[in-house]
Amino acid sequence: MREVFHQSLEDVQSRLVEIAELVTVAIERATKAFGTSDVTLAEEVIEADQVIDDKAIELDELAIQILARQQPVARDLRIVVAALRVSASLERMGDIAEHIAQLTRMRFPERAIPKGLKSTFTKMGEIDVQVANLLTEILRTEDLALVEKLRTLDDQLDDLHLSVFEKVLSENWQGEAGATVDATLASRYHERFADHALSVAKKVAYLATGEWTPDTDSIAVIVAADLAAVRENADGAEA
Amino acid sequence: MREVFHQSLEDVQSRLVEIAELVTVAIERATKAFGTSDVTLAEEVIEADQVIDDKAIELDELAIQILARQQPVARDLRIVVAALRVSASLERMGDIAEHIAQLTRMRFPERAIPKGLKSTFTKMGEIDVQVANLLTEILRTEDLALVEKLRTLDDQLDDLHLSVFEKVLSENWQGEAGATVDATLASRYHERFADHALSVAKKVAYLATGEWTPDTDSIAVIVAADLAAVRENADGAEA
Repeated sequence: MREVFHQSLEDVQSRLVEIAELVTVAIERATKAFGTSDVTLAEEVIEADQVIDDKAIELDELAIQILARQQPVARDLRIVVAALRVSASLERMGDIAEHIAQLTRMRFPERAIPKGLKSTFTKMGEIDVQVANLLTEILRTEDLALVEKLRTLDDQLDDLHLSVFEKVLSENWQGEAGATVDATLASRYHERFADHALSVAKKVAYLATGEWTPDTDSIAVIVAADLAAVRENADGAEA
Repeated sequence: MREVFHQSLEDVQSRLVEIAELVTVAIERATKAFGTSDVTLAEEVIEADQVIDDKAIELDELAIQILARQQPVARDLRIVVAALRVSASLERMGDIAEHIAQLTRMRFPERAIPKGLKSTFTKMGEIDVQVANLLTEILRTEDLALVEKLRTLDDQLDDLHLSVFEKVLSENWQGEAGATVDATLASRYHERFADHALSVAKKVAYLATGEWTPDTDSIAVIVAADLAAVRENADGAEA
């Protein structure tokens, strides 16, 4: 019985890794489509999201079966519960890749990336792909040293997210309202992607160490505060 | 033992209702602060979000304890698993109320609502409060007739969300980039709040009927498609 149980837990883990790999492919292709205005690729990302959703539902059913049949306790129980959480976050990361692809399709045949923000969004896309690869590795290896790397990437994305607002709110910004809407949504999607990844990584860290770092909204709060400062400076420059 | 178990399940339900009530207060106050540029009220909402987060973590711990000690099966097991999901969604709804409060604080002493969108955001705020009240009622009563009402409110919010983009992308829009950013973020927060509520209601419906309606992204897809149409019209008007 214990052996069967450990096989099930390994099955849970390998399925999480598999979903994380699909999410990695999704964000790679979504950010590539976004950067090159490739509407065909964008549509492929949108269509493929259903596979991620289905796999997440299958994993949840497996987790519920394990709870029902094998009634795990202690750390094993927490692993199964954490898997339910992780699958929800991965599914949401897939949705975000889909949203980025939708922005691309919506703008086609025009460029999805507003003028003056090409290099910023290229960097954000590259970091999101690194984030997805690193998260897959963390799920596979439970190597907590990698969580710190993920945090560093998340900080870089927060800085880039802020720089988008700096650009949009500066007096040099020539974009029309449509470009401002696109920049705001795209930047938020890129930044949220890493937030979800960090939230998954924290759950893995919790399972390995037993120490819980709550998912506070501190990053959003910091961005809001910094954004307020950016605005004050912009107002000062205008006056 | 069964009696203890059913007391625990009742405890889970009453805690979910309690968190939903706190979320209702949060969105009431956040939308009021946003509408009246009341920075003191906004700060109270931001501070109070920690209580919602703490209560969600406590509920999760209770659910894990129930799984460990009472090893529920069949429908009882699904109730506990669903509670874990519902608490995550409620916590996220609290975060959204906090984000709306942060927008208010960031803009202060200026008005948080961009010119020309006052009545739209007032309506969105009123509907979000109705959504939160209705969701609390659904969690309390498991009355599935109410889920349809929630869906209607969600549709109304989607229409209003779309109308914000119509306004911002129209040639009459006089707002500067800052106002466009605010309108985009605020509208998305108001609309996402109801999405999460509908996702919770679907889980309650699933528990009551056993029939699962997956959380597709269809609403986002519809909005994206409509938004593309709005843009085409706007481009046509410009040409």
